[in-house]
Amino acid sequence: MAHQPFIKTRQTEKTVNGISTQVVCTEFSNYIFIVLTQYGKIGTLVSVTPDARCSDISTPMFTTKVLLGKDEALTHVYAKNIATFVSQEAGNRPVLLGLALKDCSAENMKTLKDMIKSCQVW
Amino acid sequence: MAHQPFIKTRQTEKTVNGISTQVVCTEFSNYIFIVLTQYGKIGTLVSVTPDARCSDISTPMFTTKVLLGKDEALTHVYAKNIATFVSQEAGNRPVLLGLALKDCSAENMKTLKDMIKSCQVW
Repeated sequence: MAHQPFIKTRQTEKTVNGISTQVVCTEFSNYIFIVLTQYGKIGTLVSVTPDARCSDISTPMFTTKVLLGKDEALTHVYAKNIATFVSQEAGNRPVLLGLALKDCSAENMKTLKDMIKSCQVW
Repeated sequence: MAHQPFIKTRQTEKTVNGISTQVVCTEFSNYIFIVLTQYGKIGTLVSVTPDARCSDISTPMFTTKVLLGKDEALTHVYAKNIATFVSQEAGNRPVLLGLALKDCSAENMKTLKDMIKSCQVW
C-alpha cells in the first residue's frame, strides 16, 4: 500500500428504512476512516482501537474514544458494533468513525455494515 | 448542498521539496475534512473552529484542539495557518484537519495550501 500514489477512498449512498444514508471510507496507513451519515454531517467522531492481543484470548477487545461530539454510552456500543469487522479485516488497524445516524435500530445495522463492506478500501 | 446525493471529496498528490505529499478534502455539512499527509497516515487530527465573531473585530479568531496524536504547540500554529482560509471560504465552517508532515518549513506552506485549494470541495 505504501507504493500506491493515491489515498484510496470509496463512497456509496442508499435509502435505509426511508432515510438517505451516505458512507465514505478512506484508507490511511494507520487508520481506516469511515463516515456513516444520515445528516450529511461528520457526526460523532469515535476512534475504535484494537487492544494488544492476549495470546490466550481469541476475541480481540477494542477501546473506543469519542473525539468529537457527545460522549454517550450507546455511541461506544454502535461504534464497536460497526467498526470491529473493519479493523479485523484491515489487519487490526484502528478505525476512525464518524457517526451521524437518525435510526440506529438493530435491523438497520446489518444494512449499514453491508454499505461499509461495499466501500471496502482496506 | 443538502440536496446533493453524494459527499464531495477530492484529492491530489504532488512532490513537495522532494517529498511525496497527498491531500484529501471531503465536505460534510458541519465540517470540511482535510488530510495533508507525507506519510500516508491520517496524522495528528486537529479541529479548527472559528469563534463567534465580535462585530467590531474584523479578523476572526480560531480555536484549535488536537483530537488525536501529539498535542504540540506548533501543531496548533500549523493547523491555524493551513485551515483558516478554508474555514473562511466555506462560510466559517469548522475544519477537521489531519496533519502528517515531514517538512513544515514556511516555504512549503504556500505549496501545501495551494494543493488544498486545488481540492476545493466547499
